[in-house]
Amino acid sequence: MHIDLLLSLIEVAATIAFALSGLIEATRKRMDIIGVLSVTFVSAFGGGTLRDVLLDRRPLFWVQHQEYVWLVLAMTLVAPLLLRAARHEIGDKLMEFADALGLGLFTISGASIALSAGMPPVIAILMGSLTAVFGGVSRDVLCNEIPKVFHDHRPYTMCTFIGCGIFLGLRELQLAPQLSTILGIVSITGLRLLALAQHWHIPPWPPEKR
Amino acid sequence: MHIDLLLSLIEVAATIAFALSGLIEATRKRMDIIGVLSVTFVSAFGGGTLRDVLLDRRPLFWVQHQEYVWLVLAMTLVAPLLLRAARHEIGDKLMEFADALGLGLFTISGASIALSAGMPPVIAILMGSLTAVFGGVSRDVLCNEIPKVFHDHRPYTMCTFIGCGIFLGLRELQLAPQLSTILGIVSITGLRLLALAQHWHIPPWPPEKR
Amino acid sequence: MHIDLLLSLIEVAATIAFALSGLIEATRKRMDIIGVLSVTFVSAFGGGTLRDVLLDRRPLFWVQHQEYVWLVLAMTLVAPLLLRAARHEIGDKLMEFADALGLGLFTISGASIALSAGMPPVIAILMGSLTAVFGGVSRDVLCNEIPKVFHDHRPYTMCTFIGCGIFLGLRELQLAPQLSTILGIVSITGLRLLALAQHWHIPPWPPEKR
Repeated sequence: MHIDLLLSLIEVAATIAFALSGLIEATRKRMDIIGVLSVTFVSAFGGGTLRDVLLDRRPLFWVQHQEYVWLVLAMTLVAPLLLRAARHEIGDKLMEFADALGLGLFTISGASIALSAGMPPVIAILMGSLTAVFGGVSRDVLCNEIPKVFHDHRPYTMCTFIGCGIFLGLRELQLAPQLSTILGIVSITGLRLLALAQHWHIPPWPPEKR
Repeated sequence: MHIDLLLSLIEVAATIAFALSGLIEATRKRMDIIGVLSVTFVSAFGGGTLRDVLLDRRPLFWVQHQEYVWLVLAMTLVAPLLLRAARHEIGDKLMEFADALGLGLFTISGASIALSAGMPPVIAILMGSLTAVFGGVSRDVLCNEIPKVFHDHRPYTMCTFIGCGIFLGLRELQLAPQLSTILGIVSITGLRLLALAQHWHIPPWPPEKR
Repeated sequence: MHIDLLLSLIEVAATIAFALSGLIEATRKRMDIIGVLSVTFVSAFGGGTLRDVLLDRRPLFWVQHQEYVWLVLAMTLVAPLLLRAARHEIGDKLMEFADALGLGLFTISGASIALSAGMPPVIAILMGSLTAVFGGVSRDVLCNEIPKVFHDHRPYTMCTFIGCGIFLGLRELQLAPQLSTILGIVSITGLRLLALAQHWHIPPWPPEKR
């Protein structure tokens, strides 16, 4: 399979996952349909838009792929009704999983695009993380909550750094691009889900004096 | 009248309207003159700047039209003294009207610019709305208030979608550009003022179960 | 000394100063190491990034100068341990000084870059101020505080306007670029420190009726 097609599939799946996390949070805040659409839109496209602006890529990916805009619009109209039919307990787990999937997918997609634009490894890692994290940060800001990623002491951005490092290392080892892409995504999503399941915490920095 | 001249006139009037809405809110917060200038500046230029960055247009419109910067500076120096002389009750109605006018003007101006840049209709609607709404969102964020547009359940962005749809529809019908522009603006500003006068509300999405 | 080399040195020093102010604030909030890194990064690079995006300069200065990214990473790892060893009373004064230094350095560096890009004086002043102020604004927003610069009624942005005016005036008078650059920085940093030492306040605008 050609690597560009793989990247496109990654982008679609990541868009759905992040849109869903925004949609769930917005409906919980009892926003109107435009508010839900706005938060869903920003959650899905915020990180990728910032990446495209910083790398000076035009057209923006949601301009080039108008179908994403229609997808988000359709999700806004249909998904809240489907979610309401589901049990409420499912909500939290579903949102955590969608978020972890989006984290892995957006990070590796962002890092790959940065590499294609000729960026060195350290910038590719930053662009990957930023692509994944900025959508969620914008979502929380629009919902008037402190961005979770900065204050919950749970591994989140840390997972993107580690998984992105694995992805770049595998590329250096001349692994097939598809395989290193898949392994990068799996390591980030897996790390995040493992961290949540095991209740891992990152201590404050610097650590307390003894 | 040439359509470019019309668009320039729209931009001047929209800049004044949005600057005024920012200026009124900043003086209510008892900011210093630099704070008032900053909020006025961001209210007037925030939406258009985001539009220009997303469409990769340079120079930015306030760089190309330096006179707008001087206009906002002059307004910051003079308008608070004039407003203080006026009755306080006028303030609320004046701000609502200025805001509704800016909403219509910026939406159609933003959508027109997006069309000129070769964007398809759905992107033009998004760019138009974003041009109109992002200035106000930034204004509220700088004044440490939740953006009204996301939580007051009043039609605001909804008006830009409908009016922008009318504008694009009239263009499809080969109406003279000036006429479709004017009708687009009037429909947005009119819808917004009507919604305020009639106390229309948009319910939460999804609607409550019965 | 060539003016480009001087500007590079200015940029390094300003980056350290602003990074330090972000790092101190983030460690006070007891963030984890990723949170400290993020806030330090945004404090150091936020203003310059916005300037580069608005002027459409690529690569961004922290992409072109990867060593800055490593510098900020190294500071995040080492500086909190060094700061903890120092007395706590030093913190406030050190942060005020670092912030004032960064204010002067970033303003003149931003204005110089804007002039090199062919911007007129009024836009150069805005770009200079924005380069200096936006990093701090982003830092405060990420730390969930109202940006100090908008509500503390202390001269801050005002210093950048005055010092940038002095810088542009001296250039008009054909002073050597190095000298006008140094004098511009010194006037902004000096004004800011003087304002803090003398407890100067800017009254609300418009002033209260008598």
